[in-house]
Amino acid sequence: MNAEPPLSLHGVFPPITTPFKRSGDIDFQHLVANLERWNQQPLRGYVVGGSNGEFVSLNTEERVDVVRAVCEEVPPGRLVIAGSGMQSTRGTIELTNQMAEVGANVALVVTPSYYKSMMSAVVLENHYRQVADASPIPILLYNVPANTGVELEIEAVVRLSTHPNVIGIKESGGNVAKIGAMVHKTAEDFQVLAGSAGFLLAALEVGAVGVIAALANIAGNELAEILTQFSAGEHDAARAIQLRLIEANTAVTTGYGIPGLKAAMDMVGTYGGPVRSPFMSLGKAQKKALRRILVEARLL
Amino acid sequence: MNAEPPLSLHGVFPPITTPFKRSGDIDFQHLVANLERWNQQPLRGYVVGGSNGEFVSLNTEERVDVVRAVCEEVPPGRLVIAGSGMQSTRGTIELTNQMAEVGANVALVVTPSYYKSMMSAVVLENHYRQVADASPIPILLYNVPANTGVELEIEAVVRLSTHPNVIGIKESGGNVAKIGAMVHKTAEDFQVLAGSAGFLLAALEVGAVGVIAALANIAGNELAEILTQFSAGEHDAARAIQLRLIEANTAVTTGYGIPGLKAAMDMVGTYGGPVRSPFMSLGKAQKKALRRILVEARLL
Amino acid sequence: MNAEPPLSLHGVFPPITTPFKRSGDIDFQHLVANLERWNQQPLRGYVVGGSNGEFVSLNTEERVDVVRAVCEEVPPGRLVIAGSGMQSTRGTIELTNQMAEVGANVALVVTPSYYKSMMSAVVLENHYRQVADASPIPILLYNVPANTGVELEIEAVVRLSTHPNVIGIKESGGNVAKIGAMVHKTAEDFQVLAGSAGFLLAALEVGAVGVIAALANIAGNELAEILTQFSAGEHDAARAIQLRLIEANTAVTTGYGIPGLKAAMDMVGTYGGPVRSPFMSLGKAQKKALRRILVEARLL
Amino acid sequence: MNAEPPLSLHGVFPPITTPFKRSGDIDFQHLVANLERWNQQPLRGYVVGGSNGEFVSLNTEERVDVVRAVCEEVPPGRLVIAGSGMQSTRGTIELTNQMAEVGANVALVVTPSYYKSMMSAVVLENHYRQVADASPIPILLYNVPANTGVELEIEAVVRLSTHPNVIGIKESGGNVAKIGAMVHKTAEDFQVLAGSAGFLLAALEVGAVGVIAALANIAGNELAEILTQFSAGEHDAARAIQLRLIEANTAVTTGYGIPGLKAAMDMVGTYGGPVRSPFMSLGKAQKKALRRILVEARLL
Repeated sequence: MNAEPPLSLHGVFPPITTPFKRSGDIDFQHLVANLERWNQQPLRGYVVGGSNGEFVSLNTEERVDVVRAVCEEVPPGRLVIAGSGMQSTRGTIELTNQMAEVGANVALVVTPSYYKSMMSAVVLENHYRQVADASPIPILLYNVPANTGVELEIEAVVRLSTHPNVIGIKESGGNVAKIGAMVHKTAEDFQVLAGSAGFLLAALEVGAVGVIAALANIAGNELAEILTQFSAGEHDAARAIQLRLIEANTAVTTGYGIPGLKAAMDMVGTYGGPVRSPFMSLGKAQKKALRRILVEARLL
Repeated sequence: MNAEPPLSLHGVFPPITTPFKRSGDIDFQHLVANLERWNQQPLRGYVVGGSNGEFVSLNTEERVDVVRAVCEEVPPGRLVIAGSGMQSTRGTIELTNQMAEVGANVALVVTPSYYKSMMSAVVLENHYRQVADASPIPILLYNVPANTGVELEIEAVVRLSTHPNVIGIKESGGNVAKIGAMVHKTAEDFQVLAGSAGFLLAALEVGAVGVIAALANIAGNELAEILTQFSAGEHDAARAIQLRLIEANTAVTTGYGIPGLKAAMDMVGTYGGPVRSPFMSLGKAQKKALRRILVEARLL
Repeated sequence: MNAEPPLSLHGVFPPITTPFKRSGDIDFQHLVANLERWNQQPLRGYVVGGSNGEFVSLNTEERVDVVRAVCEEVPPGRLVIAGSGMQSTRGTIELTNQMAEVGANVALVVTPSYYKSMMSAVVLENHYRQVADASPIPILLYNVPANTGVELEIEAVVRLSTHPNVIGIKESGGNVAKIGAMVHKTAEDFQVLAGSAGFLLAALEVGAVGVIAALANIAGNELAEILTQFSAGEHDAARAIQLRLIEANTAVTTGYGIPGLKAAMDMVGTYGGPVRSPFMSLGKAQKKALRRILVEARLL
Repeated sequence: MNAEPPLSLHGVFPPITTPFKRSGDIDFQHLVANLERWNQQPLRGYVVGGSNGEFVSLNTEERVDVVRAVCEEVPPGRLVIAGSGMQSTRGTIELTNQMAEVGANVALVVTPSYYKSMMSAVVLENHYRQVADASPIPILLYNVPANTGVELEIEAVVRLSTHPNVIGIKESGGNVAKIGAMVHKTAEDFQVLAGSAGFLLAALEVGAVGVIAALANIAGNELAEILTQFSAGEHDAARAIQLRLIEANTAVTTGYGIPGLKAAMDMVGTYGGPVRSPFMSLGKAQKKALRRILVEARLL
C-alpha cells in the first residue's frame, strides 16, 4: 500500500486504441509507432487497455502484453495507467498484480457490471476495497455507465476516497454536478478525471484535474491546450477550443464508436487500422461524414 | 412575431412553487408575500407554472390565474416566463395566447411527452414551429428528460434556433457537452439556460447565460453571486459557492422533489406549504435530514 | 362505494380512437358511425379516453363530451370504461365524478407520471385509495410504463385489490410474470386485463380475463375469437390467431403509434381520420408498409 | 456444420451454478454431487457456464474445466449446453471450439454487450453468423437484456434462424409477444426456450418448447411438471404450479440474484455454497425472507 503522496494525474491521457493487423493479431509495430508520435505531444501519460483499447476483445495475456509493450516505450515522467478490471474481484486482483509487474504505474478498475441489478454501492465498495488492499500500485476508479449500465454512486466514491491506495476516479458519465460533488466531498488528495473530452472544460471549472478522452488519440495537443489556457485564466480561449471539438468528440465516441475513432486516427496519420469483430469498420458514407466533422473541428 | 432583438435572459430565475392552502386551493396571499421577498433579490425574473410550480396538478384556469397574479406583482425590468406547454400543439397554442394576454413576457414550452416513442426530432420541431408561429410572445424551449422521458435532440434545437420567435432553451438534462454544442451551433442570439443549479457554473463556462433552478426559490442570492463572480473572472470564488450548493440542490430536486423544496422554503422563511396529492409531504426524519443539508450549505 | 359483486370485465374492449375533423375538432358523427360498426362485434364494451383516444390532447371538457356521446350509443350489456386519470389526485377525483355523471360504468385511472422519480408504490397507492374512496363508480388501475415511465409495483396492486371500489387493472407493461403474480396474489374478485393484443393469449393462460387493445379497433372479431377458442380449450386454434396478429399489433402500437392505428382503421373501413398534432400522419411509404402487414395478418 | 435434424431442446434445463470452496476455487466434488441429484430429475439436460454459473467470474480455463467435468457425469440422452460467449467474435469462436472438444452438445452464445450502443442488429447478426459458421456444434442464441443491456432484435433472430447451425434461442427478456413473433416468423425447426421460469407457461402457450431457468436448480421436478401438464392439455393444473412458483422465481433471480439462488440451493439440500466476489452472500434477514418465500412456494 502506498502512503506516499499520490501521483499527480493533472493532464491529458489518451486511452490508446489497440492496433491490430489484418489477421486480427495485435500489431505491436504500429503500437510503437503511435507511441513515438504521442510522445511528442504534451500528454501526462497513457491509459492502456481501457474501453477504447477494446480490452474486452483481448484475452488476458494480450491485455498484459500491450501494457508491457507500452511501458517499454514510455519516456520518464509519463504515466502508464493500465486497465485491469475484470468481472470478479479475484480476477481483478490477479490482473492488477500482473499489470504492476510489467510496469504500470496505476491500475484503472472499471466497475463489474454483468449482474447489473446486484451492483449496489455496498457491493462495489467492497469490491474496490479488496482490490485496493491487494494492489501494489494505486487504483483509479472507473465509472462508465454507457458501457456498463452501472452507476458508481457518489457515496461509495466518497468512502473509497480515503483509502490510501485509491488515487482518484475516471468519471465518464458526463454528470458534471456529480463531478463537482465528488471534488467537494472526497478526500483532499483524491483526483477526479473527466472521462470524455465533451465535458472537459466544464469538469475543470468544477475541480477536475485532467482528462482521459478517446479524442486525445487524435487531438492531444488541442486538449492539452484547453488545460493550459484554463490554468492561465484564459477562459474564452479555452472555451473556443472546447466548443470546436464537441462534435468531433461525439463522432469518435457515441456516434461512430471505436470504428470511428480508428478511422479518424487513420485520417490524421496515426495508425488506426482494423477493429476486432463484432465491431464492423466504417463504410464509405460514414467515413465521408466523419472526415467532414474532423475538418470542421480543424483536426484535418 | 418578434423581429426586435430578443429579450435578455442573462440571470437567475426561480421556477416558483405554487402555494396552496390546507384546502388544496391556491393561496394567492402567500404567493404575493413570496414575491415581495424575491423582489428584493438580484433575480432576472420568474418562471411561473414550470415543473416546480406543479403545473400538471393545476387545471388550465389555475395556470393562467397564477401567471396573472405574478404579473401584477412584478416590478419593471423583471421578466415573467410562463409555462404554457400542453400535450397537444392546439392546446399549447391556446394556452400560450392566454399567458400573453395576462402579461407573460416569454412562454416556456415543455416537450410533449406522453407518447414518448413517437416524439422524434421531426415531430417535436414541427410542434415548436407551429407554436412559435402562432405565439405573440417569444418561446423558450424546455427539455427536461427526467420528467418527460423525452430528449429534444440538438439537431432540432439548432434548426429551431433560427426561428425569429424562439428565444432560447431551458436545458435541464444536465448534459454539459450538449449545452456547449448548442451554444456553438445555434443562431447567435439564441440563449441557453441551465435548468438546474447543480451544473450552473459548468454551463456558464461553456456559454450558458443564466439559470432556471428550483434552488433559486431558497438561494437566489447565492446563485446570483455565482453569476457575478463568474462574470468578474473570479472563478475560484464562483466554484466555492457552486460546490457548496450541489448537495442542497440535489435534496430539493431529485432527492426529495417538490415536497422537499417546499419544506426547505418553510425552513428558510419563504412560504412553502402543502403540496398537492399525489405528492406527499416530507416526514419528520426526512425533514431533519434536509435541514442538516441546508445547514451544511449555509442556507440555514 | 360498491359492495355488490364487481362488474365482469371478461372480454374484449377496444380503447377507441377519438375521431377528428380536418379542422381538428372532434368528429362526433364519425364517432357514432364507428360505434354502430363496433356494436355488431362480440365486444364486452369500450374504453373511451384511454391512451389510444389521444386523451392527453383533449381538454377536460372534450374528454367528458366524448364519453357522454359514447354512453348514448352503447347498447345495454356493454360497458363504458372512461379514462379519468389526471396528474393530480384532486383533478382525477373531479373528472372521475364527471365521467360517472355522464354514464361511464368504470373509470380507468392511469398512474400520475410527470414527477416520475417521486411516484413510489406508497405515493401511487395513496393516490388510488383517495380516488377509489371518492368515486361513485369502480376504478380500474392502469399501468402503462411505455407512456408514463412509471411502474405500478405489484405490492401496491395487491394492497389496492382489496379496496371494494378497485375492480381490476389494465396492465400494459407486457410482463407476463407480473400478470401471473397479480392473478395469484390479488383479492379473488380482482380482474386483470391485458393491455395489448401482443400478449393476450399468454395473459389468458396465466389468468387474465380479457383485453383492452389498440388492435381491437380493427380486429375486434379476431381478438374475441382468441378468447372463445381459449375458453373452449382449443389452444392450437387460439395460438394460430394470436401469432398471426402480433406483427399487426406492433404496427399499430409501438411501430407507427396512433397515426398508424388511425391509418389502419381507414384501410379496414372504420373511420380513422386525422390525428392531433404533435402527431403527424403517416407518409405514403409507411402506409404501404402498414397495408402489407395488415394483409399478412388477414385483416385486409 | 450440422445438416442433420436439429437436437430437440424440448424440456427443462437448469443453468447450473458453479460450486466454489471457501477458498474461492471451484468445488468439483460438490459439482458431481449436485449432478447426481439432478440426474434423478426429469430434466432434458444442463446449461453450464450460463449467467447463473457466474461465467464472467471464471477465467477461460475454468469455464472449460467445468464443462468437461459435467460432460463426464451426464448420462446418455441428456444434453450439455455450454456457455461460450465472449465479447469478441474471435474469442467466442475459440472458446466454442474448446467446449465442443470437451463434449458439449450445444453452445450458448450470449450477445456481446460492452459497447452497447454499437451492438446493432447488423453487428450482432454478423457476429453470430461467423460463430455459427465456425462452430462444430449447434449454436443457441442468448438474449438477456437485464444483464447485457442489449436487445437482440427479432429481425436478426429471424434471419439467423435459417442458418443450419443455429438451433434456437434462449430468450430471457420476458417479452412474450416477442417470443410469439419469433415462433411465428423463424424457420420451422428453430426452437425458442424461455429464459426464466416466471413466464414459462405463457411462453409454452405461444409456442416455446422448453425453458432454461435459474429456478430449475431447485425446482426441476415442478418445472418439468408444468411442461407435462401443458402437453397433456391440463392447463389449469399447469397454471396452478406456474402461479405458485413466480415469487420464488423472482427471489432467486432479480430479487436476491445468484447469492439468493445459492442460498436457496443450500436450503433445499443441493450444494449452493459461497459466491465469488463482488457478489456478497445473503445476510440473516434476507435468508429468513427467502426461506419464507420457498415455503410458500412449497419448495421447502
